[in-house]
Amino acid sequence: MAKKITSRETDYSKWYNEIVVQADLAENSAVRGCMVIKPYGYAIWEKMQSELDKMFKATGHQNAYFPLFVPKSLFEAEEKNAEGFAKECAVVTHYRLKNDEDHPGKLKVDPNAKLEEELVVRPTSEAVIWNTYKNWIQSYRDLPILINQWANVVRWEMRTRLFLRTAEFLWQEGHTAHATRDEALVETKLMNQVYANFVENFMAIPVIQGTKTASERFAGAEETYCIEALMQDGKALQAGTSHFLGQNFAKAFDVKFASDTGSLEYVWATSWGVSTRLIGALIMTHSDDNGLVLPPNLAPDQVVIVPIYKGEEQQRQIAEVAEKIKSDLEQHNIRVKFDNRDKFKPGFKFNEYELKGVPLRIAIGPKDLEQGTVEVARRDTLTKTTLTQQEVLAYVKNELEVMQVSLFEKAKDFRTQHTTRVDDFETFKKILEEKGGFISAHWDGTEATEEAIKNETKATIRCIPLESSLEEGVCVYSGKPSSRRVLFAKAY
Amino acid sequence: MAKKITSRETDYSKWYNEIVVQADLAENSAVRGCMVIKPYGYAIWEKMQSELDKMFKATGHQNAYFPLFVPKSLFEAEEKNAEGFAKECAVVTHYRLKNDEDHPGKLKVDPNAKLEEELVVRPTSEAVIWNTYKNWIQSYRDLPILINQWANVVRWEMRTRLFLRTAEFLWQEGHTAHATRDEALVETKLMNQVYANFVENFMAIPVIQGTKTASERFAGAEETYCIEALMQDGKALQAGTSHFLGQNFAKAFDVKFASDTGSLEYVWATSWGVSTRLIGALIMTHSDDNGLVLPPNLAPDQVVIVPIYKGEEQQRQIAEVAEKIKSDLEQHNIRVKFDNRDKFKPGFKFNEYELKGVPLRIAIGPKDLEQGTVEVARRDTLTKTTLTQQEVLAYVKNELEVMQVSLFEKAKDFRTQHTTRVDDFETFKKILEEKGGFISAHWDGTEATEEAIKNETKATIRCIPLESSLEEGVCVYSGKPSSRRVLFAKAY
Repeated sequence: MAKKITSRETDYSKWYNEIVVQADLAENSAVRGCMVIKPYGYAIWEKMQSELDKMFKATGHQNAYFPLFVPKSLFEAEEKNAEGFAKECAVVTHYRLKNDEDHPGKLKVDPNAKLEEELVVRPTSEAVIWNTYKNWIQSYRDLPILINQWANVVRWEMRTRLFLRTAEFLWQEGHTAHATRDEALVETKLMNQVYANFVENFMAIPVIQGTKTASERFAGAEETYCIEALMQDGKALQAGTSHFLGQNFAKAFDVKFASDTGSLEYVWATSWGVSTRLIGALIMTHSDDNGLVLPPNLAPDQVVIVPIYKGEEQQRQIAEVAEKIKSDLEQHNIRVKFDNRDKFKPGFKFNEYELKGVPLRIAIGPKDLEQGTVEVARRDTLTKTTLTQQEVLAYVKNELEVMQVSLFEKAKDFRTQHTTRVDDFETFKKILEEKGGFISAHWDGTEATEEAIKNETKATIRCIPLESSLEEGVCVYSGKPSSRRVLFAKAY
Repeated sequence: MAKKITSRETDYSKWYNEIVVQADLAENSAVRGCMVIKPYGYAIWEKMQSELDKMFKATGHQNAYFPLFVPKSLFEAEEKNAEGFAKECAVVTHYRLKNDEDHPGKLKVDPNAKLEEELVVRPTSEAVIWNTYKNWIQSYRDLPILINQWANVVRWEMRTRLFLRTAEFLWQEGHTAHATRDEALVETKLMNQVYANFVENFMAIPVIQGTKTASERFAGAEETYCIEALMQDGKALQAGTSHFLGQNFAKAFDVKFASDTGSLEYVWATSWGVSTRLIGALIMTHSDDNGLVLPPNLAPDQVVIVPIYKGEEQQRQIAEVAEKIKSDLEQHNIRVKFDNRDKFKPGFKFNEYELKGVPLRIAIGPKDLEQGTVEVARRDTLTKTTLTQQEVLAYVKNELEVMQVSLFEKAKDFRTQHTTRVDDFETFKKILEEKGGFISAHWDGTEATEEAIKNETKATIRCIPLESSLEEGVCVYSGKPSSRRVLFAKAY
């Protein structure tokens, strides 16, 4: 049987890593900073992809695919974007290996196969996409372009953690082109809202929508919208971003269109993305000291049935009941696994599915056979209920819905309890240190103050919440006037 | 209106490129040999992915994701595989760019950020995956491992063509691990059969299943199964391959398992893949001089409705009929597009959907309004039929099925007509030159003969067909004895 995992209180970071590895979600690979996403982790990602993809298509977007490589000259065209990513670029310089004469059986880079121009492995695709859009856009009739891409990207991070920060990760990146500033702004906000809906309704993670300060913006953006979530250790996690890029990329790549009045104008742009990082957020929002807890909407298996038997005859009889229940549930589109493996004991299986966060576990033993009952255990509350076999379908359907809502509410309560209004810097530091979470405080709007607070406390401004109302006050750090509160936190 | 495309007879290669570009499937990018897959082309790929993915899962496989990069030391571990791909490897040597002092605003590779070990951008993932499997496999209980990955790969090809041969392409690669040779062989054949079923039933492309000769095998494989299709210009196209890798990778990465008798044994492996190249096969199998022809199972839009009207009132009335038909068809899971754009004329739209290969086009004009009719045109036969609006659903459902079968039969007839049994080398060369297609001929089984024929005629042995029966004969080139015929052709 798998060993118990480290508790959150003992070592939060270790707890996280152990869940990732022991729940079979992912593991480190032989390549520095790159992870292997294992089948169970990938199945969760597939569920996320499938739902997001539907939402993108429902809002008029189409998928396409652009090259993995960005020639250096394109990469550097939008200067701020280039500057922002230059330090984390994996660079392809050669296109061939050859036998290493000094080490038989080994290969070496062929110096004669040096590329004339180096290729950057895409850290993000604005450059290569806007260089393409240039040829697609002549007139206002060609706009808007609403495209999304599912892809891998590479950012050479020095300190990596499974899902949260990896050198290669999987994501989607939307890249849209518009005739007007207003339309691009509407798109930027719409996609941030799509992300919020997805993360809240599907992943059961409550988020705050807001905009980033200038220093936290995407490199090359004029405004970055974001959704921010709060993890159980009181640290914030940026769960998705949607950027209003203004005309920056259109200018860098000279993308103009003839408007309906005949004038030539630069095109307006947005880009937006979420990544496998969301799986990190999922783990840190819902899981407990027994392992992963999955919201039913996202669970590859929503229900697992474990038989408890002695001997083949009993196994056969229980399997008959289990298969009937499985088939009933599947007819209602519930995802069910019947684990009838003989080489593992029930206790081992119970532990495995608890660790893997399967929402509902149905156990069927000899007594249940006699009495026509089953035992259902709920993963989040760890409560058990005995039901007649006739009651199972209705109970499971209802309980999956209840659990989905309940996980969201629990996380929202946690966030409410860990969001503190603070009006002086001493309290700010104390709250941050002792309680963590979001701190809602006044800020004077200067980068200098933001920087000073960050240096002194490691807290950053997570966002300027969309829903915060104007409120006169003074900056928690400088004492200068401020017209609204912003959200500070330490962050992943 | 888009200009007419070049006919196949005038210039087959140009015809192909024009279809790809004008049907909005893909285009060349700024990156040498890498393509942009446009939304319409990507929608076809998504249909293919979705069906293949179901078939993989139905045969017990799970998806996972492995790193894009392969450290050179892992890459070179399986020598034949390494040798086979070394010449086409994109190599990452640095992980940072910095400002170029000599060229303000430009970047250059930071010489201080040289990797200790170079990273190969995966041309295929056996090495990185078997290095991972090493940690996953201890006992026979851990076997089989049945994993598939959807990914991009890079092979630095010197001469590239959209879809058919690109430096970066999208594919899936299955990688399985087994306890016995027999089980791995069964898997290899099963997946080749899955490919054959998919390509024949879904893409309407008839294929020959067979095995490759030693010289045409995947680098590192002991046996390569394949499906071979015949294009309209008489050249063959390898549409998918499934490799029996023996214990080569297990030995290279030292992957052993404890068998049920306690002995330590090397694991048996398979790998199998199909790629975006299949879209090239699709185009060259069915399309005609008017553009793309799509089999209904694969068409993003199976039916397009084009209104023909004068004035807003007529447009409104026709739209009502069109929306009703669309909704009826969609209730039967038929994919329908109603193109009610006012800025394009019907003739323009007719041309566009013909070029894009939409299987059925429904036109509704003023006369149809009066008479309660519509006109349906079938893309492959270019025939038109007038129906009452009540008849549309039944007709469309039936016609889509008929067209799917009919495209397959047509391609199969073409292949039958272009498969020639040949028993002497003069006829071999004549047939190859004048008629093309598959040549079924005896071969003495030596690499020397295979090579000589290739040098003299450019024809290669496409496969040793699984279904060919033993037949005594003499090699068409050397006159030496042979026990079965093999299939020769010029190939993509």
